[in-house]
Formats: sequence, structure tokens, C-alpha cells
Amino acid sequence: MSQTATTRRSIVLKRRPHGAPGRDDFEFRDDAVPQPAAGEVVTRTIWLSIDPYMRGRLREQQTYAQPVSPGDVMTGETVGEVLTSAHPDYVAGDVVVGARGWQTHCLSPGERLVKLPRHAAPLSAYLGVLGMPGATAYRGISEICQPQKGETVVVSAASGAVGSVAGQLAKRAGARVVGVAGGAEKCLWVQDSLGFDDCVDHRSLDLRRELSAACPNGIDAYFENVGGAVQAAVFDLLNPFARVAMCGMVSQYNEAEFPPGPNLGFVVGKRVLIQGFIVSDKPEKLAEWRTLAAPWVADGSLVYREDTHDGLENAPEALAGILSGRNFGKMLVRVGHDPG
Amino acid sequence: MSQTATTRRSIVLKRRPHGAPGRDDFEFRDDAVPQPAAGEVVTRTIWLSIDPYMRGRLREQQTYAQPVSPGDVMTGETVGEVLTSAHPDYVAGDVVVGARGWQTHCLSPGERLVKLPRHAAPLSAYLGVLGMPGATAYRGISEICQPQKGETVVVSAASGAVGSVAGQLAKRAGARVVGVAGGAEKCLWVQDSLGFDDCVDHRSLDLRRELSAACPNGIDAYFENVGGAVQAAVFDLLNPFARVAMCGMVSQYNEAEFPPGPNLGFVVGKRVLIQGFIVSDKPEKLAEWRTLAAPWVADGSLVYREDTHDGLENAPEALAGILSGRNFGKMLVRVGHDPG
Repeated sequence: MSQTATTRRSIVLKRRPHGAPGRDDFEFRDDAVPQPAAGEVVTRTIWLSIDPYMRGRLREQQTYAQPVSPGDVMTGETVGEVLTSAHPDYVAGDVVVGARGWQTHCLSPGERLVKLPRHAAPLSAYLGVLGMPGATAYRGISEICQPQKGETVVVSAASGAVGSVAGQLAKRAGARVVGVAGGAEKCLWVQDSLGFDDCVDHRSLDLRRELSAACPNGIDAYFENVGGAVQAAVFDLLNPFARVAMCGMVSQYNEAEFPPGPNLGFVVGKRVLIQGFIVSDKPEKLAEWRTLAAPWVADGSLVYREDTHDGLENAPEALAGILSGRNFGKMLVRVGHDPG
Repeated sequence: MSQTATTRRSIVLKRRPHGAPGRDDFEFRDDAVPQPAAGEVVTRTIWLSIDPYMRGRLREQQTYAQPVSPGDVMTGETVGEVLTSAHPDYVAGDVVVGARGWQTHCLSPGERLVKLPRHAAPLSAYLGVLGMPGATAYRGISEICQPQKGETVVVSAASGAVGSVAGQLAKRAGARVVGVAGGAEKCLWVQDSLGFDDCVDHRSLDLRRELSAACPNGIDAYFENVGGAVQAAVFDLLNPFARVAMCGMVSQYNEAEFPPGPNLGFVVGKRVLIQGFIVSDKPEKLAEWRTLAAPWVADGSLVYREDTHDGLENAPEALAGILSGRNFGKMLVRVGHDPG
């Protein structure tokens, strides 16, 4: 996508998907690249973030944010370059994060954007390890799991954008960290590259036994990204006074009806804390996290991995992929040229 | 039971009950009233407290405390009068709370006992409104539910020893308080005598609709004593940032297998806090509560109700009763003469 394009391409929700979202649930809409009104900024999209929460936006029922309706442009955070600015804080060529939409060009109020440093971290990192997923991991670990030295922390979707950071933060706190991921390749990477103490394959025929073997002292904190059978297996191993950060339950996002969950009797006897959270409730934490983590990304001590799809038209497939665990690391769509 | 009795009667677990505990699951054991060794105290039991947690002690699996095994004296908190003391802090005639056992006479280390004032509150109150159940309500409301003025708080088992105090504390905090209780008589008392804003009968054929009607602004905090269908109905009405104090789930205590529970997806989207707690984890809170609540009991502003069975031999029936909601108020067994 050249900077002088005059046509904008958007991906619009065509119909609410049943089960896994597919390409046919979306359609393209082409129109002219807009001009900003006072206070607005037009960006060309470089990177589009694909995240599990997006499936919730496709449901009719409101969760914590307004759903996307058929005919609406699909929502998603981007890193983009300012093309035209009618906001005093931005000029053409600035690179920003925060414009939203599955679009080659986004029109945004300037206040929603955050200017990014150039030539620090790769720009895509601001959608992953230094962005919303990283800040999510930071809040869940620091505010809810609060791992203590020697405790056992389990992180599900451990090779994903959130889980990979959550586990590394728990390691920094001195905990024994056990990941749960899908398949031998991911599990190996979680142990060898992220430095988790162990990683269990959730596709294993005997998940409970393997998780139990990996957590000989039980589980003191759980960073929950998946739900389902993994949640059930973890809950059975929780220690008294365990903390559960409820970040997501991606295993069921494509389901029309959610299955029953755990009987909560154990919560009383074990004095368990189960706390749901949404990162955007404390937007100030994102900047705090960027400041904290940028040196770790720069010195390579905070490891991350990206799974990149090329071309806006592949965003629906990328979303379907992340919902079924086909991604390996932070899922991104490269929409336009990255000037670095 | 005269103070000069030389025989002690104890109720001993005969076999682990299946389902509801019955008289045949226990047996009597008679022996001599013991003599205290150094540091010990012998009390004659005046009041025995009957509480839902006792069902957990009859299970083979350890919950948060050691189970009672067949052949053991059944555990339970009592108010008693000191008969013989080998502890410097106690003399015959002192009235104390804290000796444990379904027994006419208890032998206890003096450190476990707390001396009670005479002629302040009725002695039985120290097992209910001024005792462990009251302190349980206090911790759940003040530490977890944290009701704010104008919020809606739901309390299940609202006419019970814990629920009745929990709801009154939420009222003092300025919340709209809705009880859930079993039957019209209890619901009426919860509204008219305890001053709850509304009370829903959990036996209603349309519990969900009635609860929804009683909570037009949703539910901001829930004090959970029962589990089951009430829990499911309440969870569906929780507002964003709701707090759930998990105190007990008495509806399932007689079950061999616990039924599935709620799918926890809502916990994420609504950022719900679910926190289990056991009052005895913070024993210092009991004294704090007694100091706080004693004036309210004295001036009649904290209302409570007792359901008294006469005679130690009726303790098993009293336990079965509290597990099926047949009690109306704090369940007590009068074991010996109350000197007032």
C-alpha cells in the first residue's frame, strides 16, 4: 500500500458468524481515503493486531464493549503512519498506535492515539509485548496472581502474546512457572526460549496427570486464558489461598452456548480468589508497562514471538487461526509497508 | 445436667453419613468427667452451636480442617461454665466460649477459650450474632462485598445466623439489600424484622424472575451461603465489577458428587471478584466484631433469632435440620442449665 493511495479498503462484518468466523462472514468495502476534520488524524495502517477478544465483538450480546454490527467496519488496534493531521500534536510521518479498524486507512480523534518512538523497538512490538497484550499480562500478574518466590504459577496459552509475557513476569518474581500450550513445538519454545520451568501440552490424552506431575507442590496462582478442560485440570490442583487471574477463555469463544463450569465449592474451602479483569479499565497501566518493559525488550531479556500474516484480506483467517490456537506467538497482519 | 454430675456424655461419629446425616450415624459414649492437667480447663456445656460447616467434617476428604473420623467425638463450638481449672486465667464459675465437642463436658487447653461477660448479652449470642457466624458476616461484607451506598446486595440464607447479620451490615452501609430465604414465613421476617428491602423465596417456581424483579438495577455484591440454583440466578444478574463473598454452599453439602457450576466466562467480561474465605483465618476479627456489635445487640438495632433444640441427644437432628433449611435463625442445642 503506497502512501499516495487514494482508495481505502475496509473489512466490514457481513453477518454474525456461527462457530468459527470465516472469510464469508466479512466483506470488503472500498471508499476514498478520508480527510480529517479538526482534531482528527488519518493514518495508513502498517500493522493490525488480531486478538481473541475480537470474537466477543461479533456476538449480538454486549460483553464489556459494544458489539460490531453487520455493516460496521471490524474493530482492531493498529500501528500506523500519519498521512494527514488536523490535530496539533501530530504531523505527517509520525508513527502512532491506537487507531482502530480492519482498514488500510483509519480516521481517528487525535486523543486516542499514542505517538511511538522510531528506531527503538520494532513497531509491531507496540501491538504485542509492549502493547495491550503485554499490559494485560502485567496487570494480571502484578495485581491478581502476585506470585511469591517459590510458588507455582500456571499460565495457559503460554506461547501466546499475553501468556508468554505473564509467565516471564512470574519467573522474574521467582516463581516456578508451568505453561500450558498446544503441541510439542510450542511447549518446547515455552521452555527453551521463554524459560518456563515446564510446559504441558493441552492436547495430551492425560492432561491432568501431566499437569499434576509438573506441579508437585500444587498451584498457587493461575493466569487463565483458555477455560475448558485446562481450567478444570488447574482448578483441581489449586492450593489454599490461590489466585486466579481471569483474562480470557478462548476455548469457548466460538461456542453458541457455553458449557457448564466448575462447581465452586472449592473456592470456599481453599479461600480462592477468582478475579476477572479487562486491561482497558486502567489505561494508565499501558504507559507504565511500556516504560517498565521497553528496556527488557531492548536487552532481549523479555522474549516474544510474532506470527505475521501479510495483507489486510487475510485478517479473517488470522482471527479464525487465533481462536483455534493455530497462531504461534502474537498474531499480526501486515497491512502496509513498515518503515522501521 | 447438674454441675455435680460425674458422668460425661459425648456424641461420637459412628460412620460417615451418605446424604443427610441422621441419628444412626452417631452414637453416645459415656465416661467420667475428666480432670484437667496443667493448663487445661474442664467446662460443663451450656450451649452447643450447630453450623453447616460441620457436614464437611463428616467427609473423608479434608477440606480446610481435619475431618472427624468414626470413633471421634463430633466437633462443635460451645459456651460452657468452668467446673475445674488448672489454668491460671480461669476459676470455677467462669463462663467461656471456645471449648469444642458435642459433649456435656469438654476438656480444653485454656488458651483456646475466651471468657465471657455475664449479664451482658444472652450467653447463646456468643455462638451466633456475637460469635463465629456474626464475625463471618462481618468479614464477608466488610472485606469482600464492600457495599456502597445505593448498590444492590443479595444475601442467601438470609434468615440464618450468618445471612441475617450480613444483610443488616449491608443495610447499615446504605445498600439496597435483597435476601433469599426458604418459605414465606422466613421471607416476611427478613423484611419486617431484619429490615431487608426485599426477600425472595428460593422455593419459588420462578426464582429468576422474582430475583430480577427485586433487583431492578442488577446485583453489585452477593454474599453466598447456598450455591445451586440460587447462585446461578444471582450470577446472571451480576453487574460489572460485582463482588461475590463465597462463604458456603449449603445446598450441596449432603451431595456425594457436586453438580457442575457456572461457566466462568462472565467473570472476565464483567470483571467479577469471587473470593472464598474462612472466618478462622483471621481469628483477631472475632474480637473486633464482638466489640463493634455488642452495643448494637444491646440496643436492639442488630436483630437476631435463635432456633433452639433441647438436649445433647438432639444435636444430630439439629445438624440435619440446618442442612435442609429447617432451622429458622441460629441453630443451637441447649445442653445444660443457662445461669444467664
